Amino acid sequence: MMAGGRSLEKIAATCIITLCLACLHVTSLKSQLFTRVGGLRYTTEPPISYKTLYFDQKIDHFGFLQDGTFKQRYLLADKHWHQPDGPVLFYTGNEGDITWFCNNTGFMWEIAGQLGAMLVFAEHRYYGESLPFGQESYSDSKHLNYLTSEQALADFAVLIENLKSTVPGAQNSPVIAIGGSYGGMLSAWFRMKYPNVVVGALAASAPIWQFPDMVPCGDFYKIVTQDFAKSGNNCDRNIRRSWKAINNVSSSASGLQWLSEEFSLCSPLKNKNDAVTFKSWLQETWVNLAMVDYPYEANFLQPLPRWPIQVVCKYLGFDSTVSDHQLLHGVAQAAKVYYNYTGSSPCLNTSQTATSNLGALGWFFQACTEMVMPMCTDGVQDMFEPEQWNFQAFSDECNSIFGVRPRADWAGTVYGGKKIGSHSNIIFSNGGLDPWSAGGVTSNITQSLVSILIPDGAHHLDLRYSNNLDPPSVRAARALELKYFQKWIRQAQKSTGTGSTISKKRKNSP
Amino acid sequence: MMAGGRSLEKIAATCIITLCLACLHVTSLKSQLFTRVGGLRYTTEPPISYKTLYFDQKIDHFGFLQDGTFKQRYLLADKHWHQPDGPVLFYTGNEGDITWFCNNTGFMWEIAGQLGAMLVFAEHRYYGESLPFGQESYSDSKHLNYLTSEQALADFAVLIENLKSTVPGAQNSPVIAIGGSYGGMLSAWFRMKYPNVVVGALAASAPIWQFPDMVPCGDFYKIVTQDFAKSGNNCDRNIRRSWKAINNVSSSASGLQWLSEEFSLCSPLKNKNDAVTFKSWLQETWVNLAMVDYPYEANFLQPLPRWPIQVVCKYLGFDSTVSDHQLLHGVAQAAKVYYNYTGSSPCLNTSQTATSNLGALGWFFQACTEMVMPMCTDGVQDMFEPEQWNFQAFSDECNSIFGVRPRADWAGTVYGGKKIGSHSNIIFSNGGLDPWSAGGVTSNITQSLVSILIPDGAHHLDLRYSNNLDPPSVRAARALELKYFQKWIRQAQKSTGTGSTISKKRKNSP
Repeated sequence: MMAGGRSLEKIAATCIITLCLACLHVTSLKSQLFTRVGGLRYTTEPPISYKTLYFDQKIDHFGFLQDGTFKQRYLLADKHWHQPDGPVLFYTGNEGDITWFCNNTGFMWEIAGQLGAMLVFAEHRYYGESLPFGQESYSDSKHLNYLTSEQALADFAVLIENLKSTVPGAQNSPVIAIGGSYGGMLSAWFRMKYPNVVVGALAASAPIWQFPDMVPCGDFYKIVTQDFAKSGNNCDRNIRRSWKAINNVSSSASGLQWLSEEFSLCSPLKNKNDAVTFKSWLQETWVNLAMVDYPYEANFLQPLPRWPIQVVCKYLGFDSTVSDHQLLHGVAQAAKVYYNYTGSSPCLNTSQTATSNLGALGWFFQACTEMVMPMCTDGVQDMFEPEQWNFQAFSDECNSIFGVRPRADWAGTVYGGKKIGSHSNIIFSNGGLDPWSAGGVTSNITQSLVSILIPDGAHHLDLRYSNNLDPPSVRAARALELKYFQKWIRQAQKSTGTGSTISKKRKNSP
Repeated sequence: MMAGGRSLEKIAATCIITLCLACLHVTSLKSQLFTRVGGLRYTTEPPISYKTLYFDQKIDHFGFLQDGTFKQRYLLADKHWHQPDGPVLFYTGNEGDITWFCNNTGFMWEIAGQLGAMLVFAEHRYYGESLPFGQESYSDSKHLNYLTSEQALADFAVLIENLKSTVPGAQNSPVIAIGGSYGGMLSAWFRMKYPNVVVGALAASAPIWQFPDMVPCGDFYKIVTQDFAKSGNNCDRNIRRSWKAINNVSSSASGLQWLSEEFSLCSPLKNKNDAVTFKSWLQETWVNLAMVDYPYEANFLQPLPRWPIQVVCKYLGFDSTVSDHQLLHGVAQAAKVYYNYTGSSPCLNTSQTATSNLGALGWFFQACTEMVMPMCTDGVQDMFEPEQWNFQAFSDECNSIFGVRPRADWAGTVYGGKKIGSHSNIIFSNGGLDPWSAGGVTSNITQSLVSILIPDGAHHLDLRYSNNLDPPSVRAARALELKYFQKWIRQAQKSTGTGSTISKKRKNSP
């Protein structure tokens, strides 16, 4: 099932994660390494079926010397497609296996029938099976050179143009880009850069402004903290207090042993460095919980109960008289909600925070090149140890690992930063619980660059299958998103003179 | 004055031109090789002054392995600039020495005062002095790999962002892109791809649709033919007839000798192949005349009289009874109008059609990669020998010369082809006499994607200095272009909250 090169990548990824977290402590990397991948499709969801296809993509769209091609994987479901001219919903794959995104984007599956839409899920190059150089893809920076968002967008554009010219009846099909997280950034940018290819985009939980000088670097962790603050008494305060408690306890060998046992760590902590890694791992754990604080039992990064932060916070309600050991006992119980909800984990591994983090190394390279996302903490407005954003340290780290240096301003220049008002037909949806909303577009820019807020939503909740426990805000968001899709489709059909049969169909449906 | 590597390039260019025209006869290349460069600034124009500056550009904006930089040349004139927040008129340099474009874009110099504008002329990478690898830039396809329009646009964007952040008072300056011919295509594409950087664009004589499946391949040569048809009785007919006459006369050694003498050729024609080259050279000559059929004496590709085609056609008014030799005598006289108007050319050189064709090799590489512009002739609707568009032959030729193959569909995918309606603030100006208008936008697309037609205009006449002999249509075009500029500037100042002092200034001026 896995593509060639996977094991190599996984090993390398683990090495690098350990390296980064244990030795260098560059805050931005920590959170960027929480790749939003892993997990299995939730079994109560309806069965889906699609064709797995491969398209020969140029390795380099922006140069002509490298004329090689690779097989880009994409998934296609046309059961509901209204041929000819029915719309295409196109998922702009992010940093992971596309089948996983396909399975976790129930919204597309649920609206396909209503729109008479074909679904396409396109894998992002260098992830899943879409490896430009097979097993060598991650072997060095020379092979990694074609891993950029611009190349990925060009892949999507060329793939769609090819589908339109080869699939009978698709020539005039309006295409809508949909994506979540980095995939949402891609769908927004795709509409901005290729409005000739897609008529609109849904950018769900897409932090397109989490770049230098666009938003305060501390907002991300502030939102994480707020999620804990409102999920239980003293919850954020006790996490804020825990770092010093860990420092105190880990200052002795016996304390390290006690911590290791209390947290059921697979590898016991042996020294100060291990304690630093341990704190980073805990910090990531709280961030991940904020991302997946869904209103129902789900398995996204880990199998978790409904409103998992509330469950976590039950173990963190101490008042200020609590001892270090009591506090950390509670923290251990809390961490186990995340790592061992199913009771099947014999021990906790501080080098991993999410299952099957498929694209960690690739995303790390992207963070080290274009995706420069400053993060910082102050320990006052957030519950973490203070750490400033340090671009130079980050750049040095990237250089030592990959031999590349990030370009701090490039994303802003190429994707427009805050100056995107001349574009059109993009929905930016954001969840109020989601720390990534800190870098998102959370108010309307124009009539056709609109923001949809889901106060009770975590990371791209709107893209998930509907659920009886969904809050009204996400139901409303999905309904509004659908309305925009229908509007864009009508606009497009009007401009191409197609769609009469579609309109008829629409009239016949409720 | 010339950059390093120039002589190498010139030699190579000459070789390749000869190669293409003499041996392979791919029509598209022929006309694409008519680079619109060369000549000197016309001495009656007002003196201009600017600073010559250099900016360190990344050689590769779209990858991080190649981290080298090169010096991009740009010219800056701020005499009239209203600091702070005054607008910037930014010339998006095309395939040649930027000082030449600077000197030939009088329109910008003439409106700078009225707009309180800074003028910037940015050189296109791989041309003039802006050579990414110095003398090695053209040495092989590896070094040529970064010669693409996307890289050039990124250069412009990064340069402008840098100017805004380093020039005091420029931070909120609205920038307008201006360019002619390929430079006009770049300015249109620049606004499409970087609307965050430029508030609008004037794309003068920009054939953004001269790509596969966008316009009929024969329209270009039809317009050339029309120019001759309306400039003198029987003019186009006699040129149409001349090819067979050349074939007849050149079938004998004495005929070849007669032709060589009649045309005062520097290198006498020796065989059939030479006769083929000779015909291609003549064909290019007529095309160039169509491009520079200006209403006043000018020196663009060559020093020429006013309305040069009318002068040429005086030698081509024969009726159908004329003999081959009489006809070709007239053709020779006509060709000498183009090549020897000043009387200073001792002989005519069939390997050149324009003086100082600085960027021929670079443009040839661009035509062999992205800039695939189909051209064809049928000998019926145009006055040339019939020749179909043959992409495969063209591709094979590119491959044999550069080791690259053109991507026929890429320009359409990346720049939108006919589907550009969602963009804004672009003026497409076209001259009715200009063959490149065949691939231009000649009707309004939306209220802010507008076409300006100049029926009496040849190639980007509107960008030139005003002249007493200018037809009313080009005066009106320039006035309207200025009005759009003012509108875009007001829009931009409104959105940034700047410009109060500018508006005041505007109110004070007539």
